[in-house]
Amino acid sequence: MIEENENIQFELTDELIKQVEVLINSKNDKNLKKLLDEFHYADIAEILDELNLEDAVYIIKLLDSETTSEILMELDEDNREKVLRNLSSKEIAEEIEELDTDDAADIISELPEERQHEVISHIEDEDHKAEIRELLTYDEDTAGGLMAKELVKVYETWTVAGCLRRIRAQAKEVTRVHSIYVVNKQDKLVGRLSLKDLIVAKSEQKIAEIYIKDVDYVNVNDDAEDVAKVMQKYDLEAIPVVDNNQRLLGRITIDDIVDVMKEEAEKDYQLAAGITSDVEADDSIWELTKARLPWLLIGMFGGIGAATIITNFQVVLQDYAILLSFVPLIQATAGNVGVQSSAIVVQGLANDSIKGEVLKRLFKEFLLGLVNGIAIAFVVLIISHFFFETTYLVSLTIGAALITVIIIAALIGTFIPIFLDKRGIDPAVATGPFITTSNDIFGILLYFLIAKMILGF
Amino acid sequence: MIEENENIQFELTDELIKQVEVLINSKNDKNLKKLLDEFHYADIAEILDELNLEDAVYIIKLLDSETTSEILMELDEDNREKVLRNLSSKEIAEEIEELDTDDAADIISELPEERQHEVISHIEDEDHKAEIRELLTYDEDTAGGLMAKELVKVYETWTVAGCLRRIRAQAKEVTRVHSIYVVNKQDKLVGRLSLKDLIVAKSEQKIAEIYIKDVDYVNVNDDAEDVAKVMQKYDLEAIPVVDNNQRLLGRITIDDIVDVMKEEAEKDYQLAAGITSDVEADDSIWELTKARLPWLLIGMFGGIGAATIITNFQVVLQDYAILLSFVPLIQATAGNVGVQSSAIVVQGLANDSIKGEVLKRLFKEFLLGLVNGIAIAFVVLIISHFFFETTYLVSLTIGAALITVIIIAALIGTFIPIFLDKRGIDPAVATGPFITTSNDIFGILLYFLIAKMILGF
Repeated sequence: MIEENENIQFELTDELIKQVEVLINSKNDKNLKKLLDEFHYADIAEILDELNLEDAVYIIKLLDSETTSEILMELDEDNREKVLRNLSSKEIAEEIEELDTDDAADIISELPEERQHEVISHIEDEDHKAEIRELLTYDEDTAGGLMAKELVKVYETWTVAGCLRRIRAQAKEVTRVHSIYVVNKQDKLVGRLSLKDLIVAKSEQKIAEIYIKDVDYVNVNDDAEDVAKVMQKYDLEAIPVVDNNQRLLGRITIDDIVDVMKEEAEKDYQLAAGITSDVEADDSIWELTKARLPWLLIGMFGGIGAATIITNFQVVLQDYAILLSFVPLIQATAGNVGVQSSAIVVQGLANDSIKGEVLKRLFKEFLLGLVNGIAIAFVVLIISHFFFETTYLVSLTIGAALITVIIIAALIGTFIPIFLDKRGIDPAVATGPFITTSNDIFGILLYFLIAKMILGF
Repeated sequence: MIEENENIQFELTDELIKQVEVLINSKNDKNLKKLLDEFHYADIAEILDELNLEDAVYIIKLLDSETTSEILMELDEDNREKVLRNLSSKEIAEEIEELDTDDAADIISELPEERQHEVISHIEDEDHKAEIRELLTYDEDTAGGLMAKELVKVYETWTVAGCLRRIRAQAKEVTRVHSIYVVNKQDKLVGRLSLKDLIVAKSEQKIAEIYIKDVDYVNVNDDAEDVAKVMQKYDLEAIPVVDNNQRLLGRITIDDIVDVMKEEAEKDYQLAAGITSDVEADDSIWELTKARLPWLLIGMFGGIGAATIITNFQVVLQDYAILLSFVPLIQATAGNVGVQSSAIVVQGLANDSIKGEVLKRLFKEFLLGLVNGIAIAFVVLIISHFFFETTYLVSLTIGAALITVIIIAALIGTFIPIFLDKRGIDPAVATGPFITTSNDIFGILLYFLIAKMILGF
């Protein structure tokens, strides 16, 4: 069987792109359609991301909107924006009609303001239009910004048989039925039910007799990251969203949460590497520069700070020129320790696994720094003694400085994220260049101060 | 309504822990049970993570295994290990009976080998036992290691009515019915069906007439990370797993994939920060040292390398002592640029968004480095001219070195992850201390070589 793993095996080859381009150039719509019909819309989106804009728009206009609406959702954001700019408001509205309300609202919110109104006015389905309008009012980083209006809702007074009949109607609109939400007459969420429960129940039973009262839900204003944590912690695949009066407004599904988690992880990773806004390898040099230069400038000012310190000590250092050779070692160690400490704290804060007092944590980092410091200092002393033939006092200086610097760097790396977190600032900004830079300066300053004490210049 | 957001509002307070401890000490089992009954098992696990081992074991033995088995799954891995050591093989087997096969196999695989056999021999349900044995044969990083045996399977020859009857029986074992998998007489996967489709169909129809032939699946030997990518790309909530003969073996659900993604993201983040094995803020100092010291040693050898370079240049540098002040600046800049470049490439490789030739990518990084380098050099030159009163030649040296170092660091940061990836090594190891260290040394060496060229010593 060669068809094994057809999904994993979709591979975006140059030949395939070429083939698509040839079919477009020869306007061979029939074969183009036939070729693309074989692929999943997520695969077609990958193909489109590789084509030039004109060809991508050609394909979007060629295929039916049931497929192209899903393709649009999967496109790279920059490319989607460009493609949409080449479609009329009416054409965009046709795509929107095919999408679930959450995806529809996401796409519309990416459009310039005046276009948003135009597109919405072209949506024919009045319910869909009203629902999208409602979703656009929520902040994108809240539960409201993530939820879809599509859900299956039943009243507690219905019978199982009546329920199944009505669900047949409602379910057509809902791609996947995770849970059936049970509401009372005031539309307030009172419980849930699975399709499985319905099928297992007797058809004359009342919903009120069989539904599960223990239902997890979130408020429409809850933070998206908190929703992600709740769904992950309780292994939920969908969660209903209610307003302040407990009225059922929508539901959030796990696939949206997966996207939130992924974005969050990528953002933290980039912050740790000293990259601000969300960029990709394929972005323009200008966008990449905007994301990278700010952190480089911070690092630069750190370097200038270090230069000032060294220049101030330089005159007295003439007798101990060897000390200058070890500046990079001190600096690199301080930076590395700081990043390690802060990364663990940042992750602990993200997972809510950091409890207990700040002082206790700092004391632990102190011990950890002491252990690591003694280990590193020991190795360095042996090397410096045999290879650099340093005097005992200079060796002592380097060793003492390493231990001190490692401890201080660990403490700074631990303290700063906790401090930022308490102030309501994302602690992830602390890892990376920020910690490295401050530790560089502290490390070098400490080094020379300790040298001054021990060598007495 | 004060009960708003009861989930998000679960908060692990010191009072709650205290209350639980008091109830345990006074052996007030009735009230303890009553108190814990109010909480979700994931919340109880959080409470247990805070208790001492004796108290945690007390609670595990007190509550019924339907709850405690789920609590065990949610415990921190270290704590779970300790708790299990305090349970008899028979007691563990009772917990295992309650779990889905995938969770059961995960827990058993964490036990020491001889205990594994003991525990399995105590499992009473023969089917469950055989399924767990099968799952234990798969590598934990493959689809087989992630899948559960619980699924709803129907034969294409059945009728809708017969199907619903049989599903009622099968579904009791399956917590959530995502999809119904359709197989032929040889148990080979031929398609899928949703409960919704079944409900909407007429009861006398044959499954063969209504099932969807287009089914995504993975092979049991596929890599777990690839499975995560497929499920994410195609927005799947469950995916069936087949063997090499296309026979249906099990299914993987999205919540397991969420865990895989989270672990992957945390691992990459820690690698970027110079932390090897998976550690948490709460781990022991010894475990944290093991994870952190190796990278610090690498950084240390980099520092020693830099010291060697500086020492070799020191004699000739007497006339240009100011150059030494700028070593930290050169070093920090080289490290920061390297980490930025490698982080973007590592992320691009993880998302499969890096296509095209290596040379083209390196050329882009070259341009990017040139732009950033000129910007940084410009600022530094102004500062060094006015504040450090450097001569024109020294200023020229620093400026030229900065631009060169930034370009080279960007190229190294781009090239190394791509190279590692082609060699089949996880490119994520390249970000962090590895790149920083090699760039430190290269940067300082380049700096002095350029100084030698311009200043002619």
